Amino acid sequence: MQVANGQEKLYQELIEAGLVLSQERDLDVLLDKIVETALSIAQADACSLYVIQNNVLEFKIARNLTLEKKNVSYPKNSFQLKLDSNTLAGHVAVSGKTLNIQDVHRLHDQYDFKFDNSSDIKLGYETRSMLVVPVKNLSGTVVGVLQLINHNRNGEILPFPREVISPLTVIANQSGISITNTLLSNQLEEAHIETVYRLGMAAETRDKETGNHLKRMSHYSKILAKAIGMDETYQQTLLNAAPLHDVGKIGIPDHILQKNSKLTPEEWEIMKTHAELGYQILKDSKAPLLNMGAEIALSHHEKFDGTGYPKGLKGDRIPLEGRITAIADVFDALTSRRCYKKAWDFSDVQDYCTSEKGKHFDPELVDRFFEQMTEIVSIYNKYKD
Amino acid sequence: MQVANGQEKLYQELIEAGLVLSQERDLDVLLDKIVETALSIAQADACSLYVIQNNVLEFKIARNLTLEKKNVSYPKNSFQLKLDSNTLAGHVAVSGKTLNIQDVHRLHDQYDFKFDNSSDIKLGYETRSMLVVPVKNLSGTVVGVLQLINHNRNGEILPFPREVISPLTVIANQSGISITNTLLSNQLEEAHIETVYRLGMAAETRDKETGNHLKRMSHYSKILAKAIGMDETYQQTLLNAAPLHDVGKIGIPDHILQKNSKLTPEEWEIMKTHAELGYQILKDSKAPLLNMGAEIALSHHEKFDGTGYPKGLKGDRIPLEGRITAIADVFDALTSRRCYKKAWDFSDVQDYCTSEKGKHFDPELVDRFFEQMTEIVSIYNKYKD
Repeated sequence: MQVANGQEKLYQELIEAGLVLSQERDLDVLLDKIVETALSIAQADACSLYVIQNNVLEFKIARNLTLEKKNVSYPKNSFQLKLDSNTLAGHVAVSGKTLNIQDVHRLHDQYDFKFDNSSDIKLGYETRSMLVVPVKNLSGTVVGVLQLINHNRNGEILPFPREVISPLTVIANQSGISITNTLLSNQLEEAHIETVYRLGMAAETRDKETGNHLKRMSHYSKILAKAIGMDETYQQTLLNAAPLHDVGKIGIPDHILQKNSKLTPEEWEIMKTHAELGYQILKDSKAPLLNMGAEIALSHHEKFDGTGYPKGLKGDRIPLEGRITAIADVFDALTSRRCYKKAWDFSDVQDYCTSEKGKHFDPELVDRFFEQMTEIVSIYNKYKD
Repeated sequence: MQVANGQEKLYQELIEAGLVLSQERDLDVLLDKIVETALSIAQADACSLYVIQNNVLEFKIARNLTLEKKNVSYPKNSFQLKLDSNTLAGHVAVSGKTLNIQDVHRLHDQYDFKFDNSSDIKLGYETRSMLVVPVKNLSGTVVGVLQLINHNRNGEILPFPREVISPLTVIANQSGISITNTLLSNQLEEAHIETVYRLGMAAETRDKETGNHLKRMSHYSKILAKAIGMDETYQQTLLNAAPLHDVGKIGIPDHILQKNSKLTPEEWEIMKTHAELGYQILKDSKAPLLNMGAEIALSHHEKFDGTGYPKGLKGDRIPLEGRITAIADVFDALTSRRCYKKAWDFSDVQDYCTSEKGKHFDPELVDRFFEQMTEIVSIYNKYKD
């Protein structure tokens, strides 16, 4: 190899960090890794990271190695700075230029800001040198600010040497790209989940159902999925797909869907088609969320003993998400007030569901469900109508 | 600087390429850039890129500098290879290991594949050395294969030197991560668009409307947006949001929505609430698609002279997307057969719409719309009922 060892190691570290940062899709983990990498590249004692969201600088995360060694806890709560030159981070975000400050206590008059040492005093820390780098993507858009504090060489606090600026700029660029990508994916995922929910709500509205039934029953479903050991992805998909269970009601005629008295046997047969209709609206999608929604729409009225509809499936032949949402749906219906009935007490609902073990419900799921009473009550209270 | 010049340049090239590849979100552009970078790093004469999709190796893109210089056109059409060891690319995809072949005409018996020279003969090209690198993300999942052909040093074709393997592996890793990220975003975006469409379809089904009305009217809307010079993003958002225009019909009672005779004035007033109901279903979203959908639902029955509903807005006070979809919606209604009427001829529809310039429709939009007859007819034929 023809490369001087130190430089070569640095380049390899930069390349490796670039790969790691560009692969990370979880925003919190990504921000953690950015701060970790910046601390190491700059040999800094502390680092804060701000991200621009809704036109403000959002403080996201900080590390302080000295305070951590001394077991001093320091503020990690999010706060916001205005996007103007009245603060150090704001100045760098607005100007898009790196600031290398030898000693924060001797700032020139050319800046609109002064160093605010109140936090240092509170924590017994002394901020001296600072390197503040704009986090940009390649288009030059400032996405955030990296604020590095106290360059530490063998225990001595020195100004940040010029040589760290260029590698830190590489890390800041990669961070800008990865943060932008991650925020975009998160927005897209939220948009998808939100649209699915509005589809469920649109069906609910036809049914003249109001309130938080969809929220409660989907959270109950997730709690049960977690209790039986299903993984995070399954739990999350179920949480977001469960609101689609009654989407087929969009296709049920008003005079049946909104009838105030008991349905005739013929009307009841039509009412029951909502399971198949919901499946028709959602089936054959490439989206996992809609696929699970289709399964749930089709199977949430099947019963464990095979007396349910539309297919009369028995036991394990009913998809798991159908068996889970069946319990969550009935539990919420019974514990809620409807125009024709009062809300039941939890203990009465538990008695009823227990009596339906092996009949309407998967017996094991009933047991697991009622073991989660603390979580269930907390959802019940959070989304009370 | 302590770094030998050549190595330093290479490292900087790798870092720069990493940033560029990790920022790119358009799959085709990304694949182009990957091949470009790989050619340059490996000093190769040609390069092909395969991506694994649905469990096959999908050939995506190739470059051949020699053939390009000679103006020989070579196949760029997508084809598929099985994911097994019967081909070179398949072998590398399955094994996950790089193959460095000095001369493809002298392959050892240890491989299940032989070099297929039929394409060389057809093109008058001679493949000799090959470097085939698996495209992996950091989790080690093989995402595709980069196949580099003929290492070119000053016009001489040589085997690929060992030194290019390590930088190429960096590029392959970055490519793997970026391809994975881009495919995931694309899937998420498709899922979002698909869900929006199913929401529109669910409303359509209640109306007992069938067929491709939503597809046609949203494409007509896009054609008009393009004709008046709106940008790609607007055109695309409009294309995907237009299917939501009648989503409020979910809330209209059956006896009005499905009435076979003329509506009474009172029924008509209720029917008209579908604009506001649609807005209620879609409003206050963070998703641009739903926001535009809300605007369209609310305003697609406004008329240019202020005689429309629900707000009786006039001229430019009607949102542009409302004025566009009004034309697209009426045009499709008139050119389609309905149970109560025949489909009109295009020329009659054009006469009618022209007579409504400044009354129902924005006069300028009517003119621009009918200038696009070729594109309109092609959509009409593509999505015929």
